[in-house]
Amino acid sequence: MIIDGKKLSNEFTIELKNKIKKIKNINFVVILVGNDTNSLIYIKYKQKKCEELGINFKLNQYDINISEKDLLNEVEKINTDDNIDSCIIQLPLPSHLNQNKILNKLDPNKDADGFTFFNLGKLIKHDKEDFVIKPATVLGIEKIINYYNIETKGKNIVIIGKSVIVGTPLGLVLSNESTYSGTITLCDKNTENLREICKNADILIVSTGKHNLIDHTFELKKSVSIIDVGINRIKDESKKSGFRTEGDVEYNYFENKCENITPVPGGVGPMTVICLIENIINLKIYNHK
Amino acid sequence: MIIDGKKLSNEFTIELKNKIKKIKNINFVVILVGNDTNSLIYIKYKQKKCEELGINFKLNQYDINISEKDLLNEVEKINTDDNIDSCIIQLPLPSHLNQNKILNKLDPNKDADGFTFFNLGKLIKHDKEDFVIKPATVLGIEKIINYYNIETKGKNIVIIGKSVIVGTPLGLVLSNESTYSGTITLCDKNTENLREICKNADILIVSTGKHNLIDHTFELKKSVSIIDVGINRIKDESKKSGFRTEGDVEYNYFENKCENITPVPGGVGPMTVICLIENIINLKIYNHK
Repeated sequence: MIIDGKKLSNEFTIELKNKIKKIKNINFVVILVGNDTNSLIYIKYKQKKCEELGINFKLNQYDINISEKDLLNEVEKINTDDNIDSCIIQLPLPSHLNQNKILNKLDPNKDADGFTFFNLGKLIKHDKEDFVIKPATVLGIEKIINYYNIETKGKNIVIIGKSVIVGTPLGLVLSNESTYSGTITLCDKNTENLREICKNADILIVSTGKHNLIDHTFELKKSVSIIDVGINRIKDESKKSGFRTEGDVEYNYFENKCENITPVPGGVGPMTVICLIENIINLKIYNHK
Repeated sequence: MIIDGKKLSNEFTIELKNKIKKIKNINFVVILVGNDTNSLIYIKYKQKKCEELGINFKLNQYDINISEKDLLNEVEKINTDDNIDSCIIQLPLPSHLNQNKILNKLDPNKDADGFTFFNLGKLIKHDKEDFVIKPATVLGIEKIINYYNIETKGKNIVIIGKSVIVGTPLGLVLSNESTYSGTITLCDKNTENLREICKNADILIVSTGKHNLIDHTFELKKSVSIIDVGINRIKDESKKSGFRTEGDVEYNYFENKCENITPVPGGVGPMTVICLIENIINLKIYNHK
């Protein structure tokens, strides 16, 4: 089965449109320091999706040389402004700013990315019914797993890449005994026997940014579900843009040799923005209970 | 090598006694609801060790029927009392109290157990030089690994048991790419191929409370390091107390069939209380910088 992230994301958009009908005036802010081209592209996607759903979007853009103290003040203004429901701080931040310090200044109840220590820590210990904000990519992968009925309980879930945005929090979510109860293996570039580990994977999630890290030389189970989070630009003169996008898994090889696979593009990617929107909506609802 | 937790804990106590020499008046509070016998035994250990090191120990004991609101107020008093440096809330709490809510009322800067979401979340994303409070058992295991020079980088570290006190935060700490960079496999009672997974373990950490879960029918590497966190009371009429204490691993069988092993008792156990003391001292130093 080829997992159709685009279709799933469209269905989910309709679901959220219904959910949002009776909720008025959701105010969401993006903090951007500088004007990094990629950041601006990602923000545009988010803005477009917000506007489609009737969420008020505001971009607070600051000079690239803003001091840490001034930026912390700006975040504090967001925290104390009752008219702002949620916020994200677009990453990466320039290197003179302490990213952890800035991210954790944000009130966890306004943290739509789920990147504060408080919200990340809650992933370690929560029950099914608890209100939890998960990083958007984590939530997107969770929805794919649920939608396609991919069994997790007791299964070997191998995650390659330990980022704080995807790999590590995803491991916590899929490990949780009151929900997925997967057996989680978290690998990084130092992992000595990656091939052996992948051979036993029931679900393989790859998020390294290394094009075709998992290539045809890897032996996988025929029953494996492959979730590819990688986004790599490959030079391709046949394309107008001069490049094509591919993942961390050699898709053409594994497409017919597995139970499920997410293509790149069109797999996890389309789920990410809509899952951020869900966080924005849920924070609004939760804070006004 | 048989890991001597008692000896290590004694050495570490001397180290902390030196560290504490110039620090005056460390005030530590234990909150206890009710009078559970086991809780009182554990608290006694902590009190004794505090007194040995000259840390002021206070027990705030409340009626087992205290309301959640009243207990939250009591925690808030600890937070705002500048004379109190750190605190733990003895677990388990009676079932009418929301444990997560109570634990997270405590100021993370006074959280000597490291059980607040903020401090747990910090384990996901920290650099070597960051100030991090880790749960005492996690810290104890870390010290054993360091002291006995057990290699972690790229190695298969298998953790059985996903508790919020040991297994899950330990996985985060040993997974961290800027420090241990282990390949972590987190297993629970649903894990389908536990034997296969254990066969490949370079470090095997067992924390399930199931006596001899890992018994002689398991095949392990000869080079494995076994860390047994289990504490099980086994009826034994030859003992005065009527029982003896054993772990989750069949120690007698594996004692000579592995690279390193922690006995029970005398392995991880003695490290736990002294690591709590380290947290108490470090919070005092950190908050007065």
